[in-house]
Amino acid sequence: MQPIIAIVGKSGVGKTTLIEKLISEFLKEGFRVATIKHAAHDFEIDHEGKDTWRHTNAGASAVIISSAYKMAMIKQLKEEISLNRLCDLYLDEADIVIAEGYKKEKIPKIEVFRKACNEQLLCEKKDRLIAVASDTPHDIDLPVFDVNDSKSICEFIIKKVVQKKREPSRVALRINDRKIPLNHFVKEMFKQVFMGMISTLRLKRIDTPKKVELIVDLEETTKVDDSAKSPFPPEQPFS
Amino acid sequence: MQPIIAIVGKSGVGKTTLIEKLISEFLKEGFRVATIKHAAHDFEIDHEGKDTWRHTNAGASAVIISSAYKMAMIKQLKEEISLNRLCDLYLDEADIVIAEGYKKEKIPKIEVFRKACNEQLLCEKKDRLIAVASDTPHDIDLPVFDVNDSKSICEFIIKKVVQKKREPSRVALRINDRKIPLNHFVKEMFKQVFMGMISTLRLKRIDTPKKVELIVDLEETTKVDDSAKSPFPPEQPFS
Repeated sequence: MQPIIAIVGKSGVGKTTLIEKLISEFLKEGFRVATIKHAAHDFEIDHEGKDTWRHTNAGASAVIISSAYKMAMIKQLKEEISLNRLCDLYLDEADIVIAEGYKKEKIPKIEVFRKACNEQLLCEKKDRLIAVASDTPHDIDLPVFDVNDSKSICEFIIKKVVQKKREPSRVALRINDRKIPLNHFVKEMFKQVFMGMISTLRLKRIDTPKKVELIVDLEETTKVDDSAKSPFPPEQPFS
Repeated sequence: MQPIIAIVGKSGVGKTTLIEKLISEFLKEGFRVATIKHAAHDFEIDHEGKDTWRHTNAGASAVIISSAYKMAMIKQLKEEISLNRLCDLYLDEADIVIAEGYKKEKIPKIEVFRKACNEQLLCEKKDRLIAVASDTPHDIDLPVFDVNDSKSICEFIIKKVVQKKREPSRVALRINDRKIPLNHFVKEMFKQVFMGMISTLRLKRIDTPKKVELIVDLEETTKVDDSAKSPFPPEQPFS
């Protein structure tokens, strides 16, 4: 999992403004930054009448637009995807994930407070609040930063949340998309057996393995019919 | 891989209109439909001034907005993601993927043709063109559908591209994000050894395994510092 910090606070208190500043501080530090905004209600994105909008409107459950410069995806959901799963599925390359909102998630959070907006803090230490970004002092056993001092807040996040720890390797087992906790012995056993099996394969054009995945899908699956490649008898329903 | 069909044709010929109709035909058949639009140039999505737009604009390389109803993601890229990889990474749940554009990709395609727009077809059989959707007859050894007859075109795609084949299980091995081709014997060996190892684990609260994944990441990784959970000495840089 990527390091993740939530910026929480009342609506209108300045969460997005702080996040904008934090993004540029993290960029200066050479981080790749991803953000996740929590929308309590439905939201609008995309422009009416554009092709992607028309696909979504016609009923596509997922729509992607892709170019050499960026890609965007809009997915219709039956239920919300958890923050951890969003990180896991989509934000692999990020060095830091900044979440806007998500005050109920069990992740480290910084609350933005302005005396003109708030009477009291929304979160406390037991909610994994790790600091406050405010325009006023607080009587709390946590660091309180000036809400405009994004540089110090960024340094604090790096120290308390990112803090790189080097691990020689990471072994993860998922069953039905759920991560199974394994102890060190079992991890090593899985890794050694798996890597042993791979060493028997004659691998061409593959650099030193850095990440190795084995997926066993036991459900019946749908497969592209490759006969579409070969010529087939002409049908002329038009003429 | 999901079944995929590309709808190709000149700009303005009516690709999006046909795709809208195909989406509703596939929905009637109970399919979950995903679409991928190829953008030759950069594109605009999202609305200026919204929080997600501000995150992107501040330099986040990936921005997600997530609610109980939908999620959207915008990723900045250094190079284009291939069509296969987009399907693989993001469109797992789709029963059919309809691509708009991508005439150079090696996937089955249907060309939209209107005599007011075109002089001749852009693609031919060697480009994996499998049919034409047109308002005029064509002298070609391929099915030619009335461009408005989306029902017949949908049935044709189901027959030629989707055509469900049942496989008892699927085993995939990826090294450094690259799929390694395995023959049947090796697949079975990997599956049996892996499933054998899993059978030794005491799994609680897990239904019958349907999909099992093992990931070995041999690179040094960044880890969340869990010390953020525990109380740490107060720092009051504000006061």
